[in-house]
Amino acid sequence: LLALAPESDALRAVETPALVLDHAALEQNIAAMAAFARQAGVALRPHAKTHKSPDIAALQVGAGAGGIACATIAEAEALAAAGIGGLLITTPVLGEVKVARVANLNRIADVTVVVDHIVQVECLRDAIEAGDRTLRVVVDVDVGQARTGVTQVADVLRLVEGLAKIPQLSFAGIQGYAGHAQHILDPAERAAAARAAAATLGAVSEALAKTGRPPPLITGSGTGTHLRDAAGPYTELQPGSYVFMDADYASVLDEAGAAPPFTPSLFVLATVVSVNRPGQVTVDAGTKALATNGPPPRHLIGVGPGASYRFAGDEHGIIAIPAGQESPRLGARLLIGATHCDPTVNLHASYCAVRDGVAMRWPIRGRYGD
Amino acid sequence: LLALAPESDALRAVETPALVLDHAALEQNIAAMAAFARQAGVALRPHAKTHKSPDIAALQVGAGAGGIACATIAEAEALAAAGIGGLLITTPVLGEVKVARVANLNRIADVTVVVDHIVQVECLRDAIEAGDRTLRVVVDVDVGQARTGVTQVADVLRLVEGLAKIPQLSFAGIQGYAGHAQHILDPAERAAAARAAAATLGAVSEALAKTGRPPPLITGSGTGTHLRDAAGPYTELQPGSYVFMDADYASVLDEAGAAPPFTPSLFVLATVVSVNRPGQVTVDAGTKALATNGPPPRHLIGVGPGASYRFAGDEHGIIAIPAGQESPRLGARLLIGATHCDPTVNLHASYCAVRDGVAMRWPIRGRYGD
Repeated sequence: LLALAPESDALRAVETPALVLDHAALEQNIAAMAAFARQAGVALRPHAKTHKSPDIAALQVGAGAGGIACATIAEAEALAAAGIGGLLITTPVLGEVKVARVANLNRIADVTVVVDHIVQVECLRDAIEAGDRTLRVVVDVDVGQARTGVTQVADVLRLVEGLAKIPQLSFAGIQGYAGHAQHILDPAERAAAARAAAATLGAVSEALAKTGRPPPLITGSGTGTHLRDAAGPYTELQPGSYVFMDADYASVLDEAGAAPPFTPSLFVLATVVSVNRPGQVTVDAGTKALATNGPPPRHLIGVGPGASYRFAGDEHGIIAIPAGQESPRLGARLLIGATHCDPTVNLHASYCAVRDGVAMRWPIRGRYGD
Repeated sequence: LLALAPESDALRAVETPALVLDHAALEQNIAAMAAFARQAGVALRPHAKTHKSPDIAALQVGAGAGGIACATIAEAEALAAAGIGGLLITTPVLGEVKVARVANLNRIADVTVVVDHIVQVECLRDAIEAGDRTLRVVVDVDVGQARTGVTQVADVLRLVEGLAKIPQLSFAGIQGYAGHAQHILDPAERAAAARAAAATLGAVSEALAKTGRPPPLITGSGTGTHLRDAAGPYTELQPGSYVFMDADYASVLDEAGAAPPFTPSLFVLATVVSVNRPGQVTVDAGTKALATNGPPPRHLIGVGPGASYRFAGDEHGIIAIPAGQESPRLGARLLIGATHCDPTVNLHASYCAVRDGVAMRWPIRGRYGD
């Protein structure tokens, strides 16, 4: 299935280390998730925190996604500049400059933000100017991750009541992200965590309905729990990692023991830069090219079976070659499958996306300090 | 001693998370290492892999450094563009495009490269054009890290002999980087590893002298072993991390049990974005803002004693607040001391350098894919 070869013409002029994207696998993943959501009758707003790429977001919207979720205002601005609508910033935004950026973005783009505290609501209200369109606000609910979100149903009701009094803002729905559930390996345990999160959102939704303010939108979920979450009460799913299907998620099996129906599409292209030690070669991809907070890289293309990668500092990795197996030559190239995709993407300034043998440079946007 | 306060005027308009630099501490560290090298009678070529910053490199050269070491051609190009000379690329460069970039850089800047194999020498030779100045080449020697470098004295002699036959290249010296020794916590064990590395370089140097080609330069070392390495045979030291003195290196004590004479200068500024859970608040700095492959962040400025940080995903961290201690308010800011400085810097596009109450934006250069 894999269309990429490390020594292919398309990659010959690409300098290493490079983040390489198999466009065919990417498109297939995007189509598979879009088809799943369509069949399940649930809206799809894929998360850009994974890819930080207007080009990939455009493919997702082209395949039917109603919009794109963003972790930061910088990601949302980059997507808005590329003409992408239906933006949802999924974490509370604080700070005078950031809130002003949200208000600016609301003047030129279709954006929704989340809050988990009345102070955030007041900051947003104060930033909206006369003549601005109403800013849509979603209330973030803590569904067990204990990171952001309102923790008590009564507090959600109070927050929504507060929102209703502010003409500059409109109550757009509720969000619950069970980040803690996504990577649980045991399918039954993961399903239990996802069910508990869904039950919390269901209870909040019912309580809101009783006050006459049912949530127009119930959004959340991720690649690890999207199968279960399509059953509700979510009206919208926000999966991210499925586009790349990294090794981390590929080991998150469903209750029938099946791997997710997605194909790895993200690799790091590396060059063999030193061959002086028997049984190993050194490549130019280390901890500045591949995220370390995930499983170690396992999937190698361009070396024989049994070869393995280990980190050897910021700029290097060591490929151990089994006894009797031929070592790659100095200057040879190989592809290393990305393991934890979001932080790996965050290390690079661009993708080299390979489609039908042609390499395209796709910028990665919204880096801190940019 | 610390000049930075998270709620200071200088940082008010800085969006979070931001990589913040205490300019006074930075300058003090740069001056201290320069004074050490001067007193020890050894040349200093600080390593830019740590900071990737033309601004910091200029401060180092201004304090007397003879040049700057770089891990990649992109780092060297960024420094050359800023007018910085004495550039040494400290890892072997492979691949047609990269070698062409080295040849180009040699036309406009003062650059030296390392090799550990005759194939690299031949690639460099072929890239040098008629009329180009001679390219200086240093032979990289494996002093125990088993990553790059020549492993046998006889192979070094052969490589230097091969170099001598190529008029486009000149033999500039030898390099040995004991990366494996830098972070050994036990001072005696670290000194032993450093001594072994120095002995290897000494033996190579003597063997070269016997063939009538003594190395003009013997370069290597790092922040963890610079005290010992000043005793030779190094004629030049390449420390990097001392500029920031991260928590990782601050725990690398000398044989007398003293911490290094450098001050932490690198922090991540974060904002409290959620306060709904008792005993903890959530800040907007997680694994995309702080490197995870080092000790966990410990040094917090802006919260009471006993508060501690833990990672909570790509965009968030949790600050645990001890019982009875007041929690920071929503929107409050704090500074988190960087732990593993090189990979933390690599996550950001710029520094916010604070000098005399004024914040300056200093770009971070040479990111992969840029």
